[in-house]
Amino acid sequence: MYQVSELQSLFRNYLDQNQFLQEPQGLYEPINYILNLGGKRLRPVLLLMGCNLFDENVEQALPASYAIEIFHNFSLLHDDIMDEAPLRRGQPTVHVKYNQNTGILSGDVMLVYSYEYLLQLKPKVNISNIIQIFNKVAIEVCEGQQHDMDFETRNDVTIPEYLKMIEQKTAALIAGGLKIGGLIGGASSADANHLYEFGRNIGIAFQLQDDILDTYGDPEKFGKKVGGDIVQNKKTFLVLKTLEVGDKDQQNRLSKLMNTETTNELVKIKEVKSIFDSLQIRQLSEQLMEEYLSKAFDHLNRINVAKERKLILENLANQLMGREV
Amino acid sequence: MYQVSELQSLFRNYLDQNQFLQEPQGLYEPINYILNLGGKRLRPVLLLMGCNLFDENVEQALPASYAIEIFHNFSLLHDDIMDEAPLRRGQPTVHVKYNQNTGILSGDVMLVYSYEYLLQLKPKVNISNIIQIFNKVAIEVCEGQQHDMDFETRNDVTIPEYLKMIEQKTAALIAGGLKIGGLIGGASSADANHLYEFGRNIGIAFQLQDDILDTYGDPEKFGKKVGGDIVQNKKTFLVLKTLEVGDKDQQNRLSKLMNTETTNELVKIKEVKSIFDSLQIRQLSEQLMEEYLSKAFDHLNRINVAKERKLILENLANQLMGREV
Repeated sequence: MYQVSELQSLFRNYLDQNQFLQEPQGLYEPINYILNLGGKRLRPVLLLMGCNLFDENVEQALPASYAIEIFHNFSLLHDDIMDEAPLRRGQPTVHVKYNQNTGILSGDVMLVYSYEYLLQLKPKVNISNIIQIFNKVAIEVCEGQQHDMDFETRNDVTIPEYLKMIEQKTAALIAGGLKIGGLIGGASSADANHLYEFGRNIGIAFQLQDDILDTYGDPEKFGKKVGGDIVQNKKTFLVLKTLEVGDKDQQNRLSKLMNTETTNELVKIKEVKSIFDSLQIRQLSEQLMEEYLSKAFDHLNRINVAKERKLILENLANQLMGREV
Repeated sequence: MYQVSELQSLFRNYLDQNQFLQEPQGLYEPINYILNLGGKRLRPVLLLMGCNLFDENVEQALPASYAIEIFHNFSLLHDDIMDEAPLRRGQPTVHVKYNQNTGILSGDVMLVYSYEYLLQLKPKVNISNIIQIFNKVAIEVCEGQQHDMDFETRNDVTIPEYLKMIEQKTAALIAGGLKIGGLIGGASSADANHLYEFGRNIGIAFQLQDDILDTYGDPEKFGKKVGGDIVQNKKTFLVLKTLEVGDKDQQNRLSKLMNTETTNELVKIKEVKSIFDSLQIRQLSEQLMEEYLSKAFDHLNRINVAKERKLILENLANQLMGREV
């Protein structure tokens, strides 16, 4: 079995050998740019792990892992245009470095290339089935992004709607990649579905944790600015939970804080946090996160493969959740 | 065999039964909007004709014809954003009626759905092969659009580059649709390639004719404003041919006219036209168009099917070129 670092380097080599060097440069250079900005390569590595659970030949899954990474970066590219984001991984976003039209068109052709790489899987794999899973995920990612944009102007977002949105926008691609990797490795349909559910629940737990850390994280360890969600009035799980369990007064105070121009960010963060704290929102959020995590591990356990082979996925999941392994 | 009008109505019924009614509405309503703006449905009907050449069962090709139409409208949608076009078929474009983010995201999910419909083809069809052809075409369409944008700021565009660009941007999708239709109908690989070449050459001829009509067309019959390309300084075939065959003086006069702010559009059109006329650019363009047309019909002739079955494609091609049938 492969170590995480080995899978990362296998993927990195494949990416290096499959740079977009063709013409027209104006279309393909931005693709190399975004694909080489780095990142943890979490999705492709998880896909390779899904394959490696069942088969030592992980090379056969490299085209699919690249397809998933290309798709992920396509969605980042277009999301960055929609969000008018200036930076991605600390570097200028594509629409800033090049221009918006380039961002749209290079993103479009990336989406096509993700199918192109799926077609490069060996014929022993049921490619129609793989593309079907991929399509379902791709549609969910688009729907999740639409819901996320819709939520910005809605004041009646429910917790189930929010959980569905983060499932679509974040968890589906992680889950789908794991499932595709498993199927390439020869997983039964039942095991492939357990892999999907493992990924889906981990993905949701991971996003919930991100919501929690944005408010309660250690500024030294958390990559982004702590309190950023509060300053930006984002409707995170913490906010929605407060609106659910708080009394009228607490709901009104939070809504007012979220609808007022901030003069002092630190004061605003402190006040919102004090409402959260009075309702034990952090604990309630962590509780839900733990539920998803436990569901995830339950599905991992049920996969019909020796326990030792699954350890690498369990460890990676724990690391993602910031736990010592 | 089916008549054109019958294929149009078969396609229309399929489109009606496959509207995008799902949630979130913000994502899917714009798709219905653009798909229902109308148009001649040329690409899907040609695909069905490609199938009908070989098989009476054209219903089996409906999902692929819809895939091609969805893809075509996806590319129009994103092109309209890039070109900042206010109108499409006389109606507000999607980014104007809704907003730009909607245009980007709805377009993205349309591209995914075109694959989704390809997957609905009956298993007797080699779906991987169909998707491979589709991908090649989709990549060409994106590359063609990039070249088209690049050409706007270049002063050294050659005629071969221009012909390649219109082949990618316009002809490839027509050709690919015909080929896919043929393969679904059971065409041999040789016949499918002849269908592709028929469509490719017709597509280029059609675009050349569009360039000619934009300057020399009958204002009563031509859908757009005659002389529009000249006013917009578009590097059409007529312009590139003038720069190729004209002497230094004619080249300079044309370049100057194209680089000067227009005060009087009619005067500018008249002056550019007089340069074209002095070099018989219209005749030279028509000659090249005829060459493509004749190549197209040559490929049609070589398809291994009774002549009567091919008549409908020959007639449609002639109609597209504005000829009496």
